[in-house]
Amino acid sequence: DRFYCQPIVSILKQKPMNGHDMRKVIHSVKVGVALVLVSLLYLLGPLYKRVGENAMWAIMTVVVIFEFFAGATLSKGLNRGIGTVLGGGLGCLGAAFAQAVGGVGKAIVVGIAVFIFGAGATYTRQIPNIKKKYDYGALIFILTFNLVVVSGLRADQVLELARDRLATIVMGFAICIFISLLVFPIWAGDELHHSLISRFEDLARSLEGFSKEYFENDNHKEKKSSANFSGKCKSILHSKAKDESLVNFARWEPWHGKFGFSYPWGKYLKIGEDLRDLAIIILSLKGCHDQSSEILEASVKEACEGIIASLAWTIKELGESIKEMSKCRYEDMIMPKMKSVRIEVSAIVNPFALGTYLENSDGLGI
Amino acid sequence: DRFYCQPIVSILKQKPMNGHDMRKVIHSVKVGVALVLVSLLYLLGPLYKRVGENAMWAIMTVVVIFEFFAGATLSKGLNRGIGTVLGGGLGCLGAAFAQAVGGVGKAIVVGIAVFIFGAGATYTRQIPNIKKKYDYGALIFILTFNLVVVSGLRADQVLELARDRLATIVMGFAICIFISLLVFPIWAGDELHHSLISRFEDLARSLEGFSKEYFENDNHKEKKSSANFSGKCKSILHSKAKDESLVNFARWEPWHGKFGFSYPWGKYLKIGEDLRDLAIIILSLKGCHDQSSEILEASVKEACEGIIASLAWTIKELGESIKEMSKCRYEDMIMPKMKSVRIEVSAIVNPFALGTYLENSDGLGI
Repeated sequence: DRFYCQPIVSILKQKPMNGHDMRKVIHSVKVGVALVLVSLLYLLGPLYKRVGENAMWAIMTVVVIFEFFAGATLSKGLNRGIGTVLGGGLGCLGAAFAQAVGGVGKAIVVGIAVFIFGAGATYTRQIPNIKKKYDYGALIFILTFNLVVVSGLRADQVLELARDRLATIVMGFAICIFISLLVFPIWAGDELHHSLISRFEDLARSLEGFSKEYFENDNHKEKKSSANFSGKCKSILHSKAKDESLVNFARWEPWHGKFGFSYPWGKYLKIGEDLRDLAIIILSLKGCHDQSSEILEASVKEACEGIIASLAWTIKELGESIKEMSKCRYEDMIMPKMKSVRIEVSAIVNPFALGTYLENSDGLGI
Repeated sequence: DRFYCQPIVSILKQKPMNGHDMRKVIHSVKVGVALVLVSLLYLLGPLYKRVGENAMWAIMTVVVIFEFFAGATLSKGLNRGIGTVLGGGLGCLGAAFAQAVGGVGKAIVVGIAVFIFGAGATYTRQIPNIKKKYDYGALIFILTFNLVVVSGLRADQVLELARDRLATIVMGFAICIFISLLVFPIWAGDELHHSLISRFEDLARSLEGFSKEYFENDNHKEKKSSANFSGKCKSILHSKAKDESLVNFARWEPWHGKFGFSYPWGKYLKIGEDLRDLAIIILSLKGCHDQSSEILEASVKEACEGIIASLAWTIKELGESIKEMSKCRYEDMIMPKMKSVRIEVSAIVNPFALGTYLENSDGLGI
């Protein structure tokens, strides 16, 4: 098996490990271990005698359920469980009903049931709220219902079949949960928390970067591309979908680290929304690069630099307090500071307004 | 079965049908039909005699593969096919090797193979480029490899088992492709095209809406919330992930409608990126609402309204030409028009610059 190791080793050697890559390796090893454990159902004679071919369902469960984040594994596992039970139950009822009808009608009843439940559940899957949380459960419902109701025509003991399969699925689920939650767990909550904090830092750094580029550039005509700060801001703009899925997973996760039960994950969505609004504003500062008059610049330079510095400081401080999960140390300072910034800004801005905004729109409109 | 119909009918009655809902219903019915067709493998005696329990794999394939867009179904189906063939092939090799070792070593070899391939493939799934396109294929590879290599310990005819399963999977795939591509197909390409066009329209309308709100409001102190245009712009900002997945699917789709082979779908991504930049600029106009001096407004009102109108006209015209898939009718007009707009803007802007941008940042920073 040295031979097999080669590709893995070479991947590992490609670049120095950082925390992110390390987590990926840990996840991969955990999946490997879970697969070996569940394969024991086949590999060990006595176990195989008990579960038989149904061991297949345990393997399938592990492969399909085991996700990167503990919360995702839990949510997918519960979805699969509920979908299987509901689909299996209704499938048994349908099969019994078809059996009662008997004759050629049997196949017709089964066909109609398959169509109606299949189409109905598929329609349900497309409702946004259900799609977000229960999509996988609905898929499993369709699959199980279909398999059980058609098997009912052939196998005599549908109930036993369904029970055995459910038992092996539960085994697979148990192995996943055990390894996912107890061995080096990777929490979606942690990821969400850290990504929010790093966004505060990125925004503050973008503001500072802008101020530096705009005011401290000596030969002004050769403006550096502002790719640095606008790249970061744009990646913040696109964080919405990731945030939503992380919050979804984080809600499933049990107490861990600093995050208790019923931790207000929903607030992360709200803060994320505010940060995206802020990123839009910072991005719009780019317009100042494209057009600026040097006389004006000189007159407001100092004031603007001061203002930007206090804004950046405030953003950093807020991020820091979220990181520490404590009330902001300078809470009393921030509000008055912001008020004085507002007054400063009004003093500078008064004679000018509108204008620069429009200049940009046409360059990009074409 | 009237009883079963009730929920579906009530869903249909909830709101008047529009094109979007209609497509969802069509998709649901198509899935239902595909499920009934594939269930015939069980329901019809002669067919069942040929495929036996493996019919299960055909049902599973249909449930899992059938996606809303034709391109998505194709891509998932091919992924499943490739994953199954690769996983099955390597699984057979692994099983044969384990058989050759024999004795207790057999189980150990299988266990090691399961771990290495499972962990390796899981790591591969996390590489962004592979995740985007081949995630499902890798999942199926792990599943098939695992099932085949452990079954190899028990079943004597692994090769036959693998061949039969593959055959039923191909049947399921064929049914999906037939119904997905030939019966009322729902193309990801169409969706992408229309969504891009409607974004052009939304942006033009947002610009016009802004101009109306800003200049035509009589009692200026009661500013209307600009939720209307900023909502549309924000939804445009969040279109990136959807665009990428649609382009991914559209690339798989065969010639249909106005879209030939090797249609440049990649350009939709680029245009989408530009539209998002434009949306950021329009969103930043909101700052003008929050602070404005009436003297200034009066002096630039007419010029600004004119400028905004020409920008909106240009955006609409560009959207229209993409809709018609023809060269823009007014191509010769747009460039000079934009140049004259630029001159107009410079004339207004000259005395003013910077300023308003900063005003916004602090309100949101808190």
